[in-house]
Amino acid sequence: MIKVGVVGGTGYTGVELLRLLCLHPHVRLTAVTSRGEAGMPVAEMFPSLRGRVDLCFVAPQDAALDQCDVVFFATPNGIAMKQAAELVAAGVRVIDLSADFRIRDVAEWQKWYGMEHAAPQLVAEAVYGLPEVNREAIRTARVLANPGCYPTAVQLGFLPLVEAGVVELGSLVADAKSGVSGAGRKAEVRTLFAEAADNFQAYGVPGHRHLPEIRQGLSRVAGQPVGMTFVPHLVPMIRGIHATLYGRITREVDVQKLFEERFRDEAFVDVLPAGSHPETRSVRASNLCRIAVHRPQGGDVLVVLSVIDNLVKGAAGQAVQNMNIMFGFDERCGLEVVPVSP
Amino acid sequence: MIKVGVVGGTGYTGVELLRLLCLHPHVRLTAVTSRGEAGMPVAEMFPSLRGRVDLCFVAPQDAALDQCDVVFFATPNGIAMKQAAELVAAGVRVIDLSADFRIRDVAEWQKWYGMEHAAPQLVAEAVYGLPEVNREAIRTARVLANPGCYPTAVQLGFLPLVEAGVVELGSLVADAKSGVSGAGRKAEVRTLFAEAADNFQAYGVPGHRHLPEIRQGLSRVAGQPVGMTFVPHLVPMIRGIHATLYGRITREVDVQKLFEERFRDEAFVDVLPAGSHPETRSVRASNLCRIAVHRPQGGDVLVVLSVIDNLVKGAAGQAVQNMNIMFGFDERCGLEVVPVSP
Amino acid sequence: MIKVGVVGGTGYTGVELLRLLCLHPHVRLTAVTSRGEAGMPVAEMFPSLRGRVDLCFVAPQDAALDQCDVVFFATPNGIAMKQAAELVAAGVRVIDLSADFRIRDVAEWQKWYGMEHAAPQLVAEAVYGLPEVNREAIRTARVLANPGCYPTAVQLGFLPLVEAGVVELGSLVADAKSGVSGAGRKAEVRTLFAEAADNFQAYGVPGHRHLPEIRQGLSRVAGQPVGMTFVPHLVPMIRGIHATLYGRITREVDVQKLFEERFRDEAFVDVLPAGSHPETRSVRASNLCRIAVHRPQGGDVLVVLSVIDNLVKGAAGQAVQNMNIMFGFDERCGLEVVPVSP
Amino acid sequence: MIKVGVVGGTGYTGVELLRLLCLHPHVRLTAVTSRGEAGMPVAEMFPSLRGRVDLCFVAPQDAALDQCDVVFFATPNGIAMKQAAELVAAGVRVIDLSADFRIRDVAEWQKWYGMEHAAPQLVAEAVYGLPEVNREAIRTARVLANPGCYPTAVQLGFLPLVEAGVVELGSLVADAKSGVSGAGRKAEVRTLFAEAADNFQAYGVPGHRHLPEIRQGLSRVAGQPVGMTFVPHLVPMIRGIHATLYGRITREVDVQKLFEERFRDEAFVDVLPAGSHPETRSVRASNLCRIAVHRPQGGDVLVVLSVIDNLVKGAAGQAVQNMNIMFGFDERCGLEVVPVSP
Repeated sequence: MIKVGVVGGTGYTGVELLRLLCLHPHVRLTAVTSRGEAGMPVAEMFPSLRGRVDLCFVAPQDAALDQCDVVFFATPNGIAMKQAAELVAAGVRVIDLSADFRIRDVAEWQKWYGMEHAAPQLVAEAVYGLPEVNREAIRTARVLANPGCYPTAVQLGFLPLVEAGVVELGSLVADAKSGVSGAGRKAEVRTLFAEAADNFQAYGVPGHRHLPEIRQGLSRVAGQPVGMTFVPHLVPMIRGIHATLYGRITREVDVQKLFEERFRDEAFVDVLPAGSHPETRSVRASNLCRIAVHRPQGGDVLVVLSVIDNLVKGAAGQAVQNMNIMFGFDERCGLEVVPVSP
Repeated sequence: MIKVGVVGGTGYTGVELLRLLCLHPHVRLTAVTSRGEAGMPVAEMFPSLRGRVDLCFVAPQDAALDQCDVVFFATPNGIAMKQAAELVAAGVRVIDLSADFRIRDVAEWQKWYGMEHAAPQLVAEAVYGLPEVNREAIRTARVLANPGCYPTAVQLGFLPLVEAGVVELGSLVADAKSGVSGAGRKAEVRTLFAEAADNFQAYGVPGHRHLPEIRQGLSRVAGQPVGMTFVPHLVPMIRGIHATLYGRITREVDVQKLFEERFRDEAFVDVLPAGSHPETRSVRASNLCRIAVHRPQGGDVLVVLSVIDNLVKGAAGQAVQNMNIMFGFDERCGLEVVPVSP
Repeated sequence: MIKVGVVGGTGYTGVELLRLLCLHPHVRLTAVTSRGEAGMPVAEMFPSLRGRVDLCFVAPQDAALDQCDVVFFATPNGIAMKQAAELVAAGVRVIDLSADFRIRDVAEWQKWYGMEHAAPQLVAEAVYGLPEVNREAIRTARVLANPGCYPTAVQLGFLPLVEAGVVELGSLVADAKSGVSGAGRKAEVRTLFAEAADNFQAYGVPGHRHLPEIRQGLSRVAGQPVGMTFVPHLVPMIRGIHATLYGRITREVDVQKLFEERFRDEAFVDVLPAGSHPETRSVRASNLCRIAVHRPQGGDVLVVLSVIDNLVKGAAGQAVQNMNIMFGFDERCGLEVVPVSP
Repeated sequence: MIKVGVVGGTGYTGVELLRLLCLHPHVRLTAVTSRGEAGMPVAEMFPSLRGRVDLCFVAPQDAALDQCDVVFFATPNGIAMKQAAELVAAGVRVIDLSADFRIRDVAEWQKWYGMEHAAPQLVAEAVYGLPEVNREAIRTARVLANPGCYPTAVQLGFLPLVEAGVVELGSLVADAKSGVSGAGRKAEVRTLFAEAADNFQAYGVPGHRHLPEIRQGLSRVAGQPVGMTFVPHLVPMIRGIHATLYGRITREVDVQKLFEERFRDEAFVDVLPAGSHPETRSVRASNLCRIAVHRPQGGDVLVVLSVIDNLVKGAAGQAVQNMNIMFGFDERCGLEVVPVSP
């Protein structure tokens, strides 16, 4: 049993972490912090957790986080970078679900996130927690940067093609669609039911913060810069990301086989049979990424379809997967939930 | 390990049973039948089960169901009543999720269901599987009639009041609302997305098949006939039932305490604190029923709010709960899923 | 052409008013006020109005509202009561879509709305704008209190029964369901898409502000106090109210005929054929109320189903209908929109 | 007043046509046919039309369609091609909302639609009814092929770029998303609420029937073949199409100005200000196409966002627009509905 703390437990990634952690056989949840809600039972805010999580929210300073084995940050950007160093110094491993440690180029990070970075030295040592790429480094990470939701779906979908060098790297297109929970549990007009339901729109076309993260990840794999157009859209559904990826093929290859072999040993990436169209609900509430690859009319454009649950493989589930790797547990531990469909 | 067969695995209660059974530690799934889809891998029809259920659908006659310890019928009404006798004779226990064995008065059943009953003798012995009322009888049942979804939510909500005799029995009102999955996975215009979304309506006001089932259950508990007005409605959501129940109080009583004590030992009924308004999502994908009781403005009308997931406590989950009781397993076995919210 | 001002044009009732008014043949829209958004083109906030409304939001003090023939208040409660007197004194007629003038008993109003009333003298003269009850008084109203959304659906549904004296007045039940736009265009967690979608719950069971308004209206019609239990629910749809109404019949009467005759001359109340179940979408975007009446199994409980679009007949449309009556236009003017379905 | 018949009035494009036509000042609706529902009042099937359409469905042979000035076919593919010739011979103008006359290459049509064409000679004379491209030819058309929904959104979005020759024509990408009503009012499992809600998926990636139509239209404009990858997706909303279009710029041009000038005189195409992200709801229930154009990070990929209501500009509304042109009415006649939002 490891002692686990969660900082910022009032958002969607927070409650999702708690959903997963409360059934994890090797985890003892010791503290869930909230500045605003200290004293309130967690299960009062989230009735779905009644009978599962008996803790009350506690103020960060009262949480004895330095006694934990691992602390998850399910906080807005800009919080973890201020608190991680102290925890690391106390021997606590940090898994940050925010964006604070995802971009290695601190200047680039500061440009996209609009604030000064408080812990550039930790950025340098932080491990980017995409297990399908970085598993070895994750094992020993002291600070783990859990990937963004779009970056997870997009990178996993392009990975086999970029690794194998079979697509034109300068003109990748990622047309991505996310359920509304991706915007978080913040009171905002834009994500009200009456605004987002029965509606569809793109957003952030001039530039979205997940673009540099995707480019960084795929460029590292490619060993050269990749050019990408990334357009996110808001879908009137609660959970789920569907990335539709376009790349121009540069040499003949059996792409179905390429994908199947690349992910053969991955517990959480499922390559569908040729001709498939994965649905987001087929991964709902689970840590899976399901992928299909197409070559329409035998032309030179490859189309990859990649779906995840944005709150699980795109956030809390991947964080637990990373924790499992970091502590030597079976990677699937606590992540056995069967997708809930319909 | 018990050997389990599922007859009619292509509907929503079927796939939901499979979702639960595939993680049940004491269950070995041996056959999933489908007349129409024999030969197709179950996981091809339900991609959410990829990697969890490796069986193909098999024609009923090829399923060796008589070798099972228990067979679930997740079939339309009128099927189980024709096949149950043979299985029972072979020593197989039958859990019927359809309505075939729910109504003890065969003539009444025939009136509401519009067909002749094929096994009246089994109706007489069948046990109505509402564990919170019938647990002892369930243990030894050979034929178990799994309750309907509305009847589960409505009976559990009225149960403490009727048992304690504190409401006028002649004028109960059950205003019930169900997600669209309650209509099943049948191709019908009425339940198309473009018909049911962004829409709300009542249906079956002149009379719904679940009314006699509810009246039977509550009358048995009351020891006298109860009068009930039951109005079901279709809600543009996938899962969930919300029953809003009205009864006129006949004597002073601490209703909050009454409910809490009645369900204190029930693993799957959760009485919320006074003043609460349970949400259907707080039980989504779980076998829970959450209940709150109100007495608005201190008047003489009690209002009970009762929510379940219609596919779980209202169908497949309750069936598994019944199986657990019948085979002496822990009642919660395989039903530990934390509600998925948001 | 009359000159029309709208105070508070940034909410849902505001934009809905603009949708209707911009096509009204006798209306010239002269000002739409907003404290927070002064200077912004209305069509920038509401792109659906591009090409239809060329005005910019203007600060209230710059709006020359006293030059208008009529001013609509589409403001939160507590605003109109402070500004109406001055406008009335200037000869401007006021139509208030908020609750400020709906309750004649000022003490009662103050109890439910939690503030002191700023214009009790106007409450006394204000006319309650339910045209099907108050048409004559509306014609000459200087201050018109536009009814609430639930009160419109509930009162219209009970009206024929209460007027005819055929139901027990002490035990009426109104189980009402509303789309999420009823909560307004305010940034709140409770009405976020990821909170309200695929979910259903009751709220305000201990007491909702629309209860005294409904009781006042029906009591006035009945000539005696009526007792009512009112439970509102939140439905995962954008628009629409469905009221399911229960009353115990006290003498035999042809209720279908009663309803048809009561509303025969009403342009916006449509009594459906016996046995019908009205859908909210059948009135979407229109000013209609559709009603069906049932007597299940010939018992002594009547069930009335009443649907409206909460933003139209439940707010902006009824306000325009009232304006038409006040200014002697055809009551249907500007309200000819055919319901949008699917 | 012209006499108008509608063949096949029981689907979504049928009821949408009726919604628009019943308020059209120059239209007298004389017949709505349905083989299966002859004798049923139209308003019984579509309660939204109660009080607006008094006709009953009539069998095609009893409809006296040859007495009409114009007949709309809102039928499945393969019907209009069998009946149009006779009507044309009788001097009736035909507007076909199905795909029968959209593809000039009959062999190509037969390949994609899987049947033999019954009237190749009419294909040759049929006019493709995209007014923004073909207005002059539409005026005198005897057989009008109303464009598909995706083709309308995609062609309008690419049109200025292709006409001006500023994008690489061999590598266009159209990532398109449609509400579920696009699948029609057919009883199918795939489009049930419980299947399509809270879910997102691509479909038809190997090849969709709208691809040849789009390619034909843009190739004609370009004067050379265009290469296109077209991926449609199903969105959990009722109405709306959002096309996200990608093209590689080949020479510098002010694209915002290009779009604004191209559509300056078009009543139903609205180019949004630079930087905008159009929402599908901003055109809901209206005949508008709203478009925004982006050049992310100043790179060489242009992104065009184009939204329509699939049932209006993508079907019935465009058909009425074409009728207006054919009969010399104001093009906006009957299409003045303000978008319904929220």
